[in-house]
Amino acid sequence: MNVTIRGRRRAFRTVSFNAARNAVVLIEQRCLPHAFTLIETKDFRETAAAITDMVVRGAGAIGATAAYGLAQGAAAFRGADVTRFRAHLDLVYTVLAEARPTAVDPVNAMQAMLAALHTAPVQTVAEAQAFLHQAAAAFADEDAHHCAELGRHGAPLIRDGMRVLTHCNAGWLAFVDHGSATAPLYAAQAEGRKFHVFCDETRPRCQGAALTAWEFAQQGIAHDVIADNAAGHLMQRGEIDLVIVGSDRTLGRTGEVANKIGTYTKAVLAARHKIPFYVAIPLSTIDWEMRRGLDIPIEERSPSEVLGAWGVLADPAAKGRAGRVSKAKVERAYVRIANPSSTARNPGFDVTPPDLITGIITPVGIFKPRELWRQRAKLRA
Amino acid sequence: MNVTIRGRRRAFRTVSFNAARNAVVLIEQRCLPHAFTLIETKDFRETAAAITDMVVRGAGAIGATAAYGLAQGAAAFRGADVTRFRAHLDLVYTVLAEARPTAVDPVNAMQAMLAALHTAPVQTVAEAQAFLHQAAAAFADEDAHHCAELGRHGAPLIRDGMRVLTHCNAGWLAFVDHGSATAPLYAAQAEGRKFHVFCDETRPRCQGAALTAWEFAQQGIAHDVIADNAAGHLMQRGEIDLVIVGSDRTLGRTGEVANKIGTYTKAVLAARHKIPFYVAIPLSTIDWEMRRGLDIPIEERSPSEVLGAWGVLADPAAKGRAGRVSKAKVERAYVRIANPSSTARNPGFDVTPPDLITGIITPVGIFKPRELWRQRAKLRA
Repeated sequence: MNVTIRGRRRAFRTVSFNAARNAVVLIEQRCLPHAFTLIETKDFRETAAAITDMVVRGAGAIGATAAYGLAQGAAAFRGADVTRFRAHLDLVYTVLAEARPTAVDPVNAMQAMLAALHTAPVQTVAEAQAFLHQAAAAFADEDAHHCAELGRHGAPLIRDGMRVLTHCNAGWLAFVDHGSATAPLYAAQAEGRKFHVFCDETRPRCQGAALTAWEFAQQGIAHDVIADNAAGHLMQRGEIDLVIVGSDRTLGRTGEVANKIGTYTKAVLAARHKIPFYVAIPLSTIDWEMRRGLDIPIEERSPSEVLGAWGVLADPAAKGRAGRVSKAKVERAYVRIANPSSTARNPGFDVTPPDLITGIITPVGIFKPRELWRQRAKLRA
Repeated sequence: MNVTIRGRRRAFRTVSFNAARNAVVLIEQRCLPHAFTLIETKDFRETAAAITDMVVRGAGAIGATAAYGLAQGAAAFRGADVTRFRAHLDLVYTVLAEARPTAVDPVNAMQAMLAALHTAPVQTVAEAQAFLHQAAAAFADEDAHHCAELGRHGAPLIRDGMRVLTHCNAGWLAFVDHGSATAPLYAAQAEGRKFHVFCDETRPRCQGAALTAWEFAQQGIAHDVIADNAAGHLMQRGEIDLVIVGSDRTLGRTGEVANKIGTYTKAVLAARHKIPFYVAIPLSTIDWEMRRGLDIPIEERSPSEVLGAWGVLADPAAKGRAGRVSKAKVERAYVRIANPSSTARNPGFDVTPPDLITGIITPVGIFKPRELWRQRAKLRA
């Protein structure tokens, strides 16, 4: 999508590859929304570190980063010894797979590439290197294409003049491009429709206020940040027409949706006010095995996220400006808000039952949540 | 209620009077929860400034502060000239009434005192000064007594082992003592029952994380701060048994309740999960005139509250300790969290309809919200 730098709009992907320098190019997401910085990793170890250190985050984005990292590591091999090349490739795979041990996307992306390499008519190291480079690019293109398809299916839901609520960030920064929950909005904008988005700030980590709002500002989509507490009031006053959220895991058997904490609350409110509630997902996040939402492990995150907040020191009265372009790391600061001796509970996700969900937007169409299992032949990634 | 200072528990009121020094004694609430500081205002102008500058906030607390301020101003008059005393008293009244122009409690408290003075068998300046001093003390005692009565009526709702959710701060810091939403909890604790409270942090101003959590820590009530997003998930998992909130304005004719933004959301969630939802109010907050909740003006507050947060700079990994006792002003810092060029909507309050409210706890008993009008003879303050 677009980023406006010194008044000029330029297209960027969250993850891309500079073949001439054998470098993975990443948006430094830890500096957002306060500054826009690109990072080039000089080798696969730096690429793995960028995944570990959250320079890049989001399912599709870290999948593509690992895919490019594998190609980058392969390309760095000098010589023609196939046996030594295979050992080197094992090492590259292991380092990248261990960068974020609980994430499935890097492993899935790299395993698909290696399986394809295994059956490809490839003889030499140079051919394998070229193959992996093309496979990584194809993986990234496919991620972007799936999100664009999701946007194409979802766009008709966004009508002129609508007020849409989003939660957390399921935007292009979490994928290679377009995003999931944001893709229908970007597609509707491209089709010339005007609408307004309310971005839940999404405490405690505030990805809505920081990342989703940044994306919309760059893309020129009218929006306001709101406290998570305010959505119910706005719905009650008739100021929200549609809700779109993403999902970390959707159960194919039941239609239950696990997503960022607070999603369930918005779904309950939307149902009360008869506001359509949509979940936008890439096919890779559908779990076809698990039989009930109660079994989804809910990560209990650090209390410090709830007891305080991260940001940059600022004058609250100062009028905001677009984040500057900067090579320097932004100086973030943590403030403690809560009573110093108090503890906190910090569940990271919640589970929304299918009866609260109007539809699930996928790259192959929109489905009722309970329809997923019947349509599984079409939906298996 | 109690504050623990250097390991020793001491009882404090939010507002009290030091007659020997003719000073109003206030808890410096702007330093909470990071430090506990008492302030003595040396004259009625300083008392008015303390109201303006939010050293003290909350309906009951600023009412009592103005009442004591009026007595303080009267006591400072030198001489026996009744006419000049009356003119002085007018000035004191005006300065205190204008300290927070939209608040009704200071005006109501002072007008009641002046009306009583008018009909009292008082001849001299000295007698008037003594009368006003007693009237202010009586006003503060009555506020504390009403909250204690509210607690007595509400306490049986809190059973052993319960998990209770609160929103914002309707605690003793907002009144002279006991609080409204907190009074049943303090009373149940005094009766020996054990329970656990989840304090909604209550973005954007986080009075729940800062003030309510501080009160519970001081009083030794087990509690956790949670993000406003987490309450729905906890309810879904069966971890909340009861909700108690306060109210800024309750419509006597309809039973609708205006309270801090996010209250409506919690009521919708509680209704879905069949969790009792109670509102605790002093009688002075019942509005007997307004005919529908939609007419309640909803203050739109500064966007900066949503776009960032106030706290004290801290190491997020540091284990919290009780706020220190300090005479110095705590250095608070503001961090910008949101995308710098984004705007925000910030409605301060919302309105909860009576069908979502199990009961309204008052100093004279618990009522169904639609019962208020029929019981108005008993409920008019």
